[in-house]
Amino acid sequence: MTTINAFAAQEAGAKLSPFTYEVGPLGADEVEIAVTSCGICHSDMSIINNEWGVTRYPVVPGHEVIGNITAVGETVTHLAVGQTVGIGWNVRSCLTCHQCMSGAHHHCGKTQPTIVGNHGGFADRLRAQAAWAVPVPDGLTAEQAGPLFCGGITVFSPIEEFNIKPTDRVGVIGIGGLGHLALQFLRAWGCEVWAFTTSMDKEAELKQLGAHEVANTRDDETLKGLRGKFDAIISTVNVALPWWRYVAALAPEGRFISVGAITEPMDLPPQALISGQKTIGGSDIGPPARVARMLEFCARHNIAPQIETYPMEQVNDAIAHLESGKARYRVVLTR
Amino acid sequence: MTTINAFAAQEAGAKLSPFTYEVGPLGADEVEIAVTSCGICHSDMSIINNEWGVTRYPVVPGHEVIGNITAVGETVTHLAVGQTVGIGWNVRSCLTCHQCMSGAHHHCGKTQPTIVGNHGGFADRLRAQAAWAVPVPDGLTAEQAGPLFCGGITVFSPIEEFNIKPTDRVGVIGIGGLGHLALQFLRAWGCEVWAFTTSMDKEAELKQLGAHEVANTRDDETLKGLRGKFDAIISTVNVALPWWRYVAALAPEGRFISVGAITEPMDLPPQALISGQKTIGGSDIGPPARVARMLEFCARHNIAPQIETYPMEQVNDAIAHLESGKARYRVVLTR
Repeated sequence: MTTINAFAAQEAGAKLSPFTYEVGPLGADEVEIAVTSCGICHSDMSIINNEWGVTRYPVVPGHEVIGNITAVGETVTHLAVGQTVGIGWNVRSCLTCHQCMSGAHHHCGKTQPTIVGNHGGFADRLRAQAAWAVPVPDGLTAEQAGPLFCGGITVFSPIEEFNIKPTDRVGVIGIGGLGHLALQFLRAWGCEVWAFTTSMDKEAELKQLGAHEVANTRDDETLKGLRGKFDAIISTVNVALPWWRYVAALAPEGRFISVGAITEPMDLPPQALISGQKTIGGSDIGPPARVARMLEFCARHNIAPQIETYPMEQVNDAIAHLESGKARYRVVLTR
Repeated sequence: MTTINAFAAQEAGAKLSPFTYEVGPLGADEVEIAVTSCGICHSDMSIINNEWGVTRYPVVPGHEVIGNITAVGETVTHLAVGQTVGIGWNVRSCLTCHQCMSGAHHHCGKTQPTIVGNHGGFADRLRAQAAWAVPVPDGLTAEQAGPLFCGGITVFSPIEEFNIKPTDRVGVIGIGGLGHLALQFLRAWGCEVWAFTTSMDKEAELKQLGAHEVANTRDDETLKGLRGKFDAIISTVNVALPWWRYVAALAPEGRFISVGAITEPMDLPPQALISGQKTIGGSDIGPPARVARMLEFCARHNIAPQIETYPMEQVNDAIAHLESGKARYRVVLTR
């Protein structure tokens, strides 16, 4: 038996406290890592607070985990002890269903989330199916790589899935942990990049991150003036949006992609999508092969999250900082 | 001056009556056809009744027009007198904008609809920009070809635009004028085809048209039992739908495409689209090059609308029959 030292919430909304648990022999298809850093994602908070009704306590959050491999299971041949890998939202999938076999492992019906029914990365060790542990390429630091495994892939996936082209004009709604990565991805992808924000004081910073243009969406007239302009819009926010305006802002064949958990019904009839053949879609995370492509793309283009780091022991301070809305842009725990 | 003999509505909801109008010299880029048949589409009724608020009276309906070319403008070299062509929702676009130059003429901002601000095909003659007059290939009769120019292309376009593959499982909601063509297209496309209907008495007929399976959507349990099954669903109806059920029926990366003018807001939050990366899209008509591809596909696969014909002089009877809901499936006026 191996003892893992972690930080857990014992009930909804509780502060995290030290927590240890035992694990048995390493699975044949697994790797074990010594955690060196772990990003904090808004969905960690959602799980801690049981906002989605799926949390099982005690819960060890953390699903943007980077570490060095300390052991590999007996059937694992493509990874080796000492290698630096990352683990994101899932630690396992079936590997045999149609989705897994098609390279869409994140659509597998039997994924094992890292922090639901499993203890996550706010810990000294983490185990995962080797297929879900993706090597971190040279050129990315461990601290910076972490947030790419959930926040990053969440906004990188729609670029591939919705076939965004370098010749496209693309808008990003909400420039936070996800949005500031989306701007960088799209700029390196070759697109004309627009940041939609309600904080015009960030204009210079958003242009630095990759935006060619910054549009103030606090002003309804701004959106009105952007009719028919965008080949794609990626929304990272989780609040109700003026759907009519955004659909009108799409060019013919334009697609609006929400990666934010907007739970209010869209105030939009399907008829609004017909003229110009427009679509509204959703997207979440991505499969390991895409994570690997994303990491290589980041290394080649010097794309990285802007992070603030906290020692893992100060996890509650780190969470409080993130919840204050003042983090720029992603908070990472280090060990 | 040439006199054109037509049937027009003089005001909203009026019966059609004989109407003549004069036209001047044929435009250099135009063709004139002697109309031999013209389908009646539900949107003809919408225009007659000014349901969309855009009608200009007197209005000559008819935008599924087939005829033989009687004259070509001086710059028209690819069409010749005597050729049989069809004209659909538009008689003109700018031909120079980005959309026209990209082969997406139907997305041009300056299209001239056939029956809005222009007199349509319930007439002995019709003129159109030659680019919008598409030759009818051998193997299709004039009467059968007409409904393909609006009803047909409306359900053929999403197959191309949303990249429906022969290996996909696809559902069609609403089997009327559009849906009965969608079943035929999808069957010939190689798909597994499902008809969603509330009229199970049509089951044998729908299978004859191309459906492998017929699902009774009057029964909520049916849809419940179809979770995660469909790569695509094409809806031809214009009534509110149980969005949650249909989105749940989509497989990962599935797309729901509405070609029906559903004007009620969707009772659906964007969050419902995130897991499984699903999309909801709209689609209408298509560009001339796609109409030509569709016609060749129809000729090769013996795809044709089931029609009932009326002499054009009995246009009011024909409209009444269509409005009764008893037409199987498309009504065509002949001369």
